[in-house]
Amino acid sequence: MIEQFEIRLPAFKRGYHIITRNILEAIPKLPEKGLMNVFIHHTSAGLMINEAADPSVLTDMESMFNHLVPENLPFLVHTMEGSDDMPAHVKSALTGVSLTIPISEGRLKLGTWQGIFLCEFRNHGGSRKLTVTVYS
Amino acid sequence: MIEQFEIRLPAFKRGYHIITRNILEAIPKLPEKGLMNVFIHHTSAGLMINEAADPSVLTDMESMFNHLVPENLPFLVHTMEGSDDMPAHVKSALTGVSLTIPISEGRLKLGTWQGIFLCEFRNHGGSRKLTVTVYS
Amino acid sequence: MIEQFEIRLPAFKRGYHIITRNILEAIPKLPEKGLMNVFIHHTSAGLMINEAADPSVLTDMESMFNHLVPENLPFLVHTMEGSDDMPAHVKSALTGVSLTIPISEGRLKLGTWQGIFLCEFRNHGGSRKLTVTVYS
Repeated sequence: MIEQFEIRLPAFKRGYHIITRNILEAIPKLPEKGLMNVFIHHTSAGLMINEAADPSVLTDMESMFNHLVPENLPFLVHTMEGSDDMPAHVKSALTGVSLTIPISEGRLKLGTWQGIFLCEFRNHGGSRKLTVTVYS
Repeated sequence: MIEQFEIRLPAFKRGYHIITRNILEAIPKLPEKGLMNVFIHHTSAGLMINEAADPSVLTDMESMFNHLVPENLPFLVHTMEGSDDMPAHVKSALTGVSLTIPISEGRLKLGTWQGIFLCEFRNHGGSRKLTVTVYS
Repeated sequence: MIEQFEIRLPAFKRGYHIITRNILEAIPKLPEKGLMNVFIHHTSAGLMINEAADPSVLTDMESMFNHLVPENLPFLVHTMEGSDDMPAHVKSALTGVSLTIPISEGRLKLGTWQGIFLCEFRNHGGSRKLTVTVYS
């Protein structure tokens, strides 16, 4: 059995945001056993699963990804949409845009410290759209 | 229901190439609702979903990944197969080799600007093999 | 049909370790055709598929990821759990924690050189837990 849900997230500011609750609240009931796929329909944002307990992880994730993929590198060509645009595409390539997570005993089977992150790589990315597919 | 398709891509030159059409043309008909998994059977190439509209994104992606993972770093040991080989393995680790994408209303549900990229990290990688699994 | 298996890995030392066999030995029988999802329930370890033939790839992967994500960067805030902790979260974001792999003719359909890696990013990460979901 396959069910699909579309989620329209509120506009988040640049950075990392825990959206586990946004996703679970959009789904009426999880099956006893299965898998959930979360997909983001954008090329300058990403999804990851990471530590959702200490907010300083979110801050450091932003600093570290900016360190890895700096803006204004002199060799970049795709610069028309602003200095945050091409780095956003690269960061999205690094995190990915699709997550698959087990469902067990009617619950999303994340580890104790794991949460689902929206990675907003643009300065003004606006609202983002997800498709969640649950199969059981 | 699960269907599987093997796709043999033509040899692409080093760089990023949009293969959404190659994949869709190999599949007779998509189900109404489901998921598609695309898997590449190689360790020096990768798959990603990213902006398929402006070709300069493909060029910059190549430049940025070369900047992130340069060749000839002095501490590398696995150098027998050429200076492009170990960096190719690392880039493949960063992009990943497996993509899962929702199918909705009989179509691959990508975002407006999203396409599927083959990332050819070797100078002469040759033809690459994919397995596409569709379940509904 | 969906089957799930929990795997408790032995404690591995920091670095990259091939666990394809650990996974296959925990599963009684693979279906004729399907997909396998492997999920790691931790935020300072990761999973990847990469070259499992030459051990020097494992060594270089460790060196390269340390080069990409060094410890003790001065701007980091999340430092209470040791200098290897925040870099471990970033590396986990880069590799990901979830792999989906096709099953064909009753076997895991990996490429000739591909194996499943546990990426242990902590100095003393201890035993790690996986959930494997097989659907057919």
